[in-house]
Amino acid sequence: MAGNAEHVRVMFERSDFIRSLGIKLEDVGEGWCEATFVPAEAHRQQHGFIHAGVVYTLADHVAGGAAGTTLPAGKDVITVENKISYLRPAMGESLRCRGVVLRTG
Amino acid sequence: MAGNAEHVRVMFERSDFIRSLGIKLEDVGEGWCEATFVPAEAHRQQHGFIHAGVVYTLADHVAGGAAGTTLPAGKDVITVENKISYLRPAMGESLRCRGVVLRTG
Amino acid sequence: MAGNAEHVRVMFERSDFIRSLGIKLEDVGEGWCEATFVPAEAHRQQHGFIHAGVVYTLADHVAGGAAGTTLPAGKDVITVENKISYLRPAMGESLRCRGVVLRTG
Amino acid sequence: MAGNAEHVRVMFERSDFIRSLGIKLEDVGEGWCEATFVPAEAHRQQHGFIHAGVVYTLADHVAGGAAGTTLPAGKDVITVENKISYLRPAMGESLRCRGVVLRTG
Repeated sequence: MAGNAEHVRVMFERSDFIRSLGIKLEDVGEGWCEATFVPAEAHRQQHGFIHAGVVYTLADHVAGGAAGTTLPAGKDVITVENKISYLRPAMGESLRCRGVVLRTG
Repeated sequence: MAGNAEHVRVMFERSDFIRSLGIKLEDVGEGWCEATFVPAEAHRQQHGFIHAGVVYTLADHVAGGAAGTTLPAGKDVITVENKISYLRPAMGESLRCRGVVLRTG
Repeated sequence: MAGNAEHVRVMFERSDFIRSLGIKLEDVGEGWCEATFVPAEAHRQQHGFIHAGVVYTLADHVAGGAAGTTLPAGKDVITVENKISYLRPAMGESLRCRGVVLRTG
Repeated sequence: MAGNAEHVRVMFERSDFIRSLGIKLEDVGEGWCEATFVPAEAHRQQHGFIHAGVVYTLADHVAGGAAGTTLPAGKDVITVENKISYLRPAMGESLRCRGVVLRTG
């Protein structure tokens, strides 16, 4: 598990896009991952909400991080497909996203 | 149609996130929309590919633009859900994305 | 709620396809719905598993039933889009499916 | 390719559920597959439309058939996830479904 947590840290640190958005890995355990994000003006769409693509990016990367905690050594994770439903606008000073693995392998 | 094309231009111009990524509306017609995007280092994920969230954002916003061309006056468009499959890495000096409406209303 | 539970019962009783599969509404409450299903040979695909379409039908109809419990009078529910992930084969003498509404309206 | 077309024929013939619905493989080529389906009362949902699960099953199995034409010997295909949007009700005396592979492997 220790090695996998390190793998997830690298997934966040080495992703320029994640760093440019200010998405921060907060905690990670076997089969889960949490990150936070502070929305700013640069993340808005035309109605003033956070852009769907920002919310998606947060969810996608955190899901990947959660998956990364379950990988055997020498394996890696990449998004092949995804589906997202926007239940309500993401608002607040800081957003927290938690990803949980339902099945791996 | 002229009014709707103007609506789509506003969708791109007033979205801070779209402007910050450098996504440019190229052309728009009834039921379709095209935009271009020049990938840079800031858009990469940990393997050096463009982040899935950047590709998603491009596709999401262009789909919204295409939908925007079909709206009656006084109506607006927002993403409620989206599904994406990554068939291969998005590479090249410039990406072009075309969105086409299959059904409106 | 009493009226809505009745609405959901009708959704199951009047659907020929649901009856032909033997899917049975078991219980329903505000924002949720449960049904059971007894797999038979006629539901199999080529490897002997229950066909993905049978599992989908069960999940789709139960999700619709859950949504049906939240509707104001005079409104109805129909599937516009859906996404399903098959985490493992559905096996056993009887399957139970529970649908829960995350957001309505 | 001849071997793969045979593989697809078996996928349709050995699936009890596909046969019970009356879904018929019509033609198959490298990367595509077509089947037809004659809707009957037993396939209806509560509003009288063909049930979403029937349309899904048709699309799912045909997509699998198309994928089956691209497989190397000794490999097989099974649905891991699927996404469907219902653009309009499926009506008519006979439905034809065509599946096309966008990427394999």
